[in-house]
Amino acid sequence: MGSLSPHLRKHKVAVVGSGNWGTAIAKIVAENTASNDSLFERDVEMWVFEEKVEIPKNSRHYDPSSPLCQGPQNLTEIINKTHENVKYLPGIALPENIHANPSVVDAVKDSTILIFNLPHQFINKTCEQIKGKILPYARGISCIKGVDVTEEGVSLFSETIGKTLGIYCGALSGANIANEVAQEKWCESSIAYDPPHLDSKAPSPNRSPSASTVDVVHFEHKDVSGQLSQVKLQPLPSEYPPIDHTVLKTLFHRPYFHIRVVSDVAGVSLGGALKNIVALAAGWVDGMGWGDNAKAAIMRVGLLEMVKFGEKFFGATIDTRTFTEESAGVADLITSCSGGRNFRCAKLSIERKQPIDKIEETELNGQKLQGTLTAVEVNKFLKKQGLEDEFPLFTAVYRILEGSMSVESIPSYIER
Amino acid sequence: MGSLSPHLRKHKVAVVGSGNWGTAIAKIVAENTASNDSLFERDVEMWVFEEKVEIPKNSRHYDPSSPLCQGPQNLTEIINKTHENVKYLPGIALPENIHANPSVVDAVKDSTILIFNLPHQFINKTCEQIKGKILPYARGISCIKGVDVTEEGVSLFSETIGKTLGIYCGALSGANIANEVAQEKWCESSIAYDPPHLDSKAPSPNRSPSASTVDVVHFEHKDVSGQLSQVKLQPLPSEYPPIDHTVLKTLFHRPYFHIRVVSDVAGVSLGGALKNIVALAAGWVDGMGWGDNAKAAIMRVGLLEMVKFGEKFFGATIDTRTFTEESAGVADLITSCSGGRNFRCAKLSIERKQPIDKIEETELNGQKLQGTLTAVEVNKFLKKQGLEDEFPLFTAVYRILEGSMSVESIPSYIER
Repeated sequence: MGSLSPHLRKHKVAVVGSGNWGTAIAKIVAENTASNDSLFERDVEMWVFEEKVEIPKNSRHYDPSSPLCQGPQNLTEIINKTHENVKYLPGIALPENIHANPSVVDAVKDSTILIFNLPHQFINKTCEQIKGKILPYARGISCIKGVDVTEEGVSLFSETIGKTLGIYCGALSGANIANEVAQEKWCESSIAYDPPHLDSKAPSPNRSPSASTVDVVHFEHKDVSGQLSQVKLQPLPSEYPPIDHTVLKTLFHRPYFHIRVVSDVAGVSLGGALKNIVALAAGWVDGMGWGDNAKAAIMRVGLLEMVKFGEKFFGATIDTRTFTEESAGVADLITSCSGGRNFRCAKLSIERKQPIDKIEETELNGQKLQGTLTAVEVNKFLKKQGLEDEFPLFTAVYRILEGSMSVESIPSYIER
Repeated sequence: MGSLSPHLRKHKVAVVGSGNWGTAIAKIVAENTASNDSLFERDVEMWVFEEKVEIPKNSRHYDPSSPLCQGPQNLTEIINKTHENVKYLPGIALPENIHANPSVVDAVKDSTILIFNLPHQFINKTCEQIKGKILPYARGISCIKGVDVTEEGVSLFSETIGKTLGIYCGALSGANIANEVAQEKWCESSIAYDPPHLDSKAPSPNRSPSASTVDVVHFEHKDVSGQLSQVKLQPLPSEYPPIDHTVLKTLFHRPYFHIRVVSDVAGVSLGGALKNIVALAAGWVDGMGWGDNAKAAIMRVGLLEMVKFGEKFFGATIDTRTFTEESAGVADLITSCSGGRNFRCAKLSIERKQPIDKIEETELNGQKLQGTLTAVEVNKFLKKQGLEDEFPLFTAVYRILEGSMSVESIPSYIER
């Protein structure tokens, strides 16, 4: 790369969030902006929620005699000085072109590409803070796992972000564990990006390509509850390279982090949520000692219910191959059913003959598993739609959680 | 079931083969013929290669004081007396309606449904023995795992059987371990059955339904090398219930053995062969300590190469969802990459820093792994077609086996 670009301006990238996954993603994109200077500004802004921290023992910079270690200091200052997120990703050297910024408004203000990577409960508040203070033609990528399921419907975090900020927002999800990605252990991930014909040059099966002369596009989204919302989208000025699948791959792909870019935002987002329900069932079956074939059967049945859920509630906008062929689908499911925490806690609950909330107490300090939360939410939604019977595995998981069904009856229940 | 059938005759079932998998399948079908007496003759013939055996200690009938245990006796006689295959499936009680028969010709002579379940190297010889001595309108199901790959092409065992005997033959394959199935541990399996419109009532996407008045159908098959062969198929007499997906499910489905019947014989057969190549790569990657995400990535890439292989060489006759949605596809792949012998030996070869043939020597008494054999055969075939580059994971596995590539270079090689 590094060749002269025909474009006058370069993309500036900001990462909103700096937990272990946010920092690992900032590391990746900063490595790529540094080596692709025809497309991107070198420096990457990373918003860090400011807090006072002491350098911990597992930091690369722990040295009791150093001035750095003489008491608590601002996390942003430590990151900018040491190029290590000593609190959330200790032990990992970060590229020097990551700039930790305590102000989220300042971090995003000139950026054309905004990467959201923060706990989902902070999405609304953070978006409200920066609303109207970003470039109106910015584009987003949400790295927040899962979806928001209520009795009324299923909404994607990327859409919540996009609607609040008035921008288009895609999603990244895959079989990824933050610490392993940070250590550059090889894995894959999926990016879904399918904006309405303004700046995407990537083929989009549902839309015909059109010239980028349109000024404003009303991007329609009809969610499960039937609500139609419109987002006024601003086209990216032509001085910038278009933000398409190739540019996103250049920004996120690394030799240790393989990216496939697809167009199915709903599929990529749903995979990361629904797999946790399946992982509970896989953990129970494994705990029963039924063997690898039974566990594989559960995963296969779960995969098909994921496909069916996508088809039923997102219709033509979903590509079912996302579930069966992409990292955000089948691979993430496999990883979660191999050693993820939902799987492990479910397995423990059988081995110790304890209900899963007891395991959550002893193993997770009372923190709830994502799988148990999602199973309850999805069941509420299915029940309201009168569709529990069409998703027997999801329903079985819910009923086992509420104590009205036994693990032994899973095979006969899903057979119907 | 058990209701009066409108048909005058019932199906008689024979199982050709009596290893652990053959006996486990005989147990299943005998349980089902006994409880579905409107469709099937109660007794199931099982061909047993006769040999003299002594009752082993892990048999249910081991008792040094019993007359049964006073020296070697014919295996068929022991099975018919004790209802246990003491040599190949000791410890498992078999239904009393299995009849062990030392003559393969006698075992199959009146049967309308022939189930083939013997080591693939005995297929040709056994089929030659019974050729012309079976009912001309019999139908077959092959439970023999895998396919036959040579430089010239890929042939399915079900087709070899069908062509030799002049009958239609489907296939059964899935995430199944014989001993676990025999112990009634729950799992799933796939049956593929798609005969040319003679007696199948099941929907077949590639063929239009037609009346069953045709006397003889020339069933055409064009294999990869372009050879076209014709099999004269005889219709099933109308006194019998038609052999369709429903009848096959009734014959094979058990509460502990869930069956889905599909029409894609090539996909079901290919899955059982190609997954072993992927399992080697998964074992290597796991042995390297790269983590569950890397292993899931290998499995995902392998699954897509399986799909591509099917599409490329079996074209329109294959349904790629067999790989991504059925037990014979994704579930069997998952099981094989969890604890199958190809996976385990590949992992050991990294941990012990020994080539895999050394592991085959020490762990398998020099027996070759199915995965190493298939990887070499598939590579020869791909090389001849000039298509090595289009299957980078299969090619990487072959090159690692021959020592011209390292496991470390898998990610960059499959990235191309």
